[in-house]
Amino acid sequence: MARDAALRAAILQSVEDGFAEQVAYTQKLVSFASQRGEEFAVQDFIFNDLKARGMAMDRFAMDEAALTAHEGGAPFSATHSRAPIVVGIHHPRQETGRSLILQHHLDVVPVGPRDMWEHDPYGGEIVGDWMYGRGAGDMKAGAAANVYALAALKRIGLQPAGTVYLQSVVEEELTGNGALQTFLRGYTAQAALIPEPEDEKLVRSCVGVLWFSVEVRGIPVHVREMGAGANAIDAAWRLIGALREVEARWNAEAPQHPECAGVEKPINMNIGLIEGGDWGSSVPAWCRFQVRVSIYPGQKAKEKFQELVDHAMAFARTDGFLAQNPPVLMQNGFNAEGYILAPSEAEDVLAGAHEAAFAAPLESFCTAAYLDARVYALYNRIPTLCYGPKSKGIHGFDEAVSLSSVKRVTQTMALFIAEWCGTEPI
Amino acid sequence: MARDAALRAAILQSVEDGFAEQVAYTQKLVSFASQRGEEFAVQDFIFNDLKARGMAMDRFAMDEAALTAHEGGAPFSATHSRAPIVVGIHHPRQETGRSLILQHHLDVVPVGPRDMWEHDPYGGEIVGDWMYGRGAGDMKAGAAANVYALAALKRIGLQPAGTVYLQSVVEEELTGNGALQTFLRGYTAQAALIPEPEDEKLVRSCVGVLWFSVEVRGIPVHVREMGAGANAIDAAWRLIGALREVEARWNAEAPQHPECAGVEKPINMNIGLIEGGDWGSSVPAWCRFQVRVSIYPGQKAKEKFQELVDHAMAFARTDGFLAQNPPVLMQNGFNAEGYILAPSEAEDVLAGAHEAAFAAPLESFCTAAYLDARVYALYNRIPTLCYGPKSKGIHGFDEAVSLSSVKRVTQTMALFIAEWCGTEPI
Repeated sequence: MARDAALRAAILQSVEDGFAEQVAYTQKLVSFASQRGEEFAVQDFIFNDLKARGMAMDRFAMDEAALTAHEGGAPFSATHSRAPIVVGIHHPRQETGRSLILQHHLDVVPVGPRDMWEHDPYGGEIVGDWMYGRGAGDMKAGAAANVYALAALKRIGLQPAGTVYLQSVVEEELTGNGALQTFLRGYTAQAALIPEPEDEKLVRSCVGVLWFSVEVRGIPVHVREMGAGANAIDAAWRLIGALREVEARWNAEAPQHPECAGVEKPINMNIGLIEGGDWGSSVPAWCRFQVRVSIYPGQKAKEKFQELVDHAMAFARTDGFLAQNPPVLMQNGFNAEGYILAPSEAEDVLAGAHEAAFAAPLESFCTAAYLDARVYALYNRIPTLCYGPKSKGIHGFDEAVSLSSVKRVTQTMALFIAEWCGTEPI
Repeated sequence: MARDAALRAAILQSVEDGFAEQVAYTQKLVSFASQRGEEFAVQDFIFNDLKARGMAMDRFAMDEAALTAHEGGAPFSATHSRAPIVVGIHHPRQETGRSLILQHHLDVVPVGPRDMWEHDPYGGEIVGDWMYGRGAGDMKAGAAANVYALAALKRIGLQPAGTVYLQSVVEEELTGNGALQTFLRGYTAQAALIPEPEDEKLVRSCVGVLWFSVEVRGIPVHVREMGAGANAIDAAWRLIGALREVEARWNAEAPQHPECAGVEKPINMNIGLIEGGDWGSSVPAWCRFQVRVSIYPGQKAKEKFQELVDHAMAFARTDGFLAQNPPVLMQNGFNAEGYILAPSEAEDVLAGAHEAAFAAPLESFCTAAYLDARVYALYNRIPTLCYGPKSKGIHGFDEAVSLSSVKRVTQTMALFIAEWCGTEPI
């Protein structure tokens, strides 16, 4: 909580005063179609913007060799983003306070079929309390909140009394390599705050996430000889059934993971993509599908992937077709372990700030989604607070963020920064 | 059988004498990558070649309005071929014999993953008795046999004493509209012979074939909310299960279709293509798949398609997800009925010719594949003889045709033409 009631009130009012500008800034971020590999423009925009705001700037590429050598690094596929990572640095005149990382990602997931959207995916339209657009919630509103929490202090003549790194990354949606690169670059601080759309709650624990592709190949023949050939699409489906056995087994282990209590189904296996076959009248010779599965906090990514491979191969040996044509499982994205947030002074400060902004206690929960927060929690080993606004339709159609929620979250953040870092006059 | 033993021997020897040239001609046809929509060059090649051989030439486009208005016509999709249909016409000086249609198609199915081929798909390589290549069997060897059966007569100073239409069509692999266009153009004759790769046998009966796409759409959400969203790939798979119930029911009706006796599974439903989803970490919002299914000879294509639609919709109403998001089934290819070949004098003549070439009786069988022959059998209502060489890997990898089989089939065909049409000196 801000150090005195007058300062607290001034900060809350300053966020209020800057909010129209913050909304426009959020719309500007949403207007960039920053899908994977296409984040150059939005990263340049924020680079120039943070520079204009007076931050010292660092911009650097992801280092494939270093990332893939790291236990939390994900493989580089052909479509891996080459967009730069941007860090804006605030140094106080006197380093009297605590340092802080404010992080966000500006990559967004694909839009999907346009005709399923009622709103322009890049329009940032506002209807009532909601701003619509791909990334509005996940997490361009959070990115704008990082910028405008600092701007709110500046508006009343203050700046943090500790170093603040404002880290704008990419590759959050597929590998988490962007966040890991900030760690490999050597950046760290005494705490990290990441305003992902977390429904105004604090993430207490977070699952790990694995991505891998599965490919089945066989012998195509004319459909008149279906007995002789083997249908790779059918075989792929049997293999999916086998992988779902692992999913069920892992979910049955939930009682051993009390950090996930309250999550109905902590382990989700998603077949997010499938494609197979070349021709309707040929028995399909190949089928590929993409799997995303979560693992419990504390579990090792490599070990859990191997468990899936072993189960798939054991099943394949029992299957007439797959025994002759063993499937190929290959990691092609997240290789990320989960984390549990330990109690910390940083959390206490956030809780106080939240209570001041919302007049309600801060709740925490276990999320079944990947978070870049794992980098700071697992490798920087610092208190990592993932906390942000209400949203709807994340990764879906008509994604939107609640503007009233964004305002209060930004108030929480500004109060948190003032309390955690301390303030000094500009 | 040719009218006397000396003529018969001369014809057999003439095919033998021309066979090296026929093999080279077949390789030339195989060298054209004449996949759907890409048959222009090969159709121009055969147009020029038949013209050079002295035939009167007709070349015409497929008429979408007329084809789709016909009960056996298939819908035109965006990828429907626009390549022309080519007919070479031989008129005898005196129309003393019977007329004949010799037909083939020059479109081929896709190659599929190249690395699954040991041989160049367009190389026409010969290893032992086999010539390899996409379309070598289906049916460029047959096309060359049409040309070289006539050439064998010419080599010994003879030509058919009845009109012969040598029809080179496209769209056999997806719609059968090319063959239907020759009927709509008004061509007919007293018999038709189509040298499809039929393992040196005569097709006694042939199933009908339906092609249709199925599309499922739903609401995508972040995978962390899988309970809220619905996985379109999973829903598509449940729908495939429902369609397979129809397949099983139809196969159970096999005893009512004695023309298909001996075929282990006359009704084959093939899911030849599947695609769905946009992103591994989103619950997939859509899934499309392509279905090819056969129907018994004598059954109406429209009625059987409706039966599939009705079953799919009845199932959808019982499914939590599909009831809210009804699937869309749409015909997008074959809308073809099967046929049964009645005994005829044409068949007797073919049987005699086959016995002379092979020293073995002609066998007949029921095929579970689509054949253009259905056009001539159902709409021209003429004896339609589908008969051709041994092949392997049709629609698969390393497709090949047996050259010794092609030679004997060409001998059968030359003898058949001489006997059916009669001959006159050039």
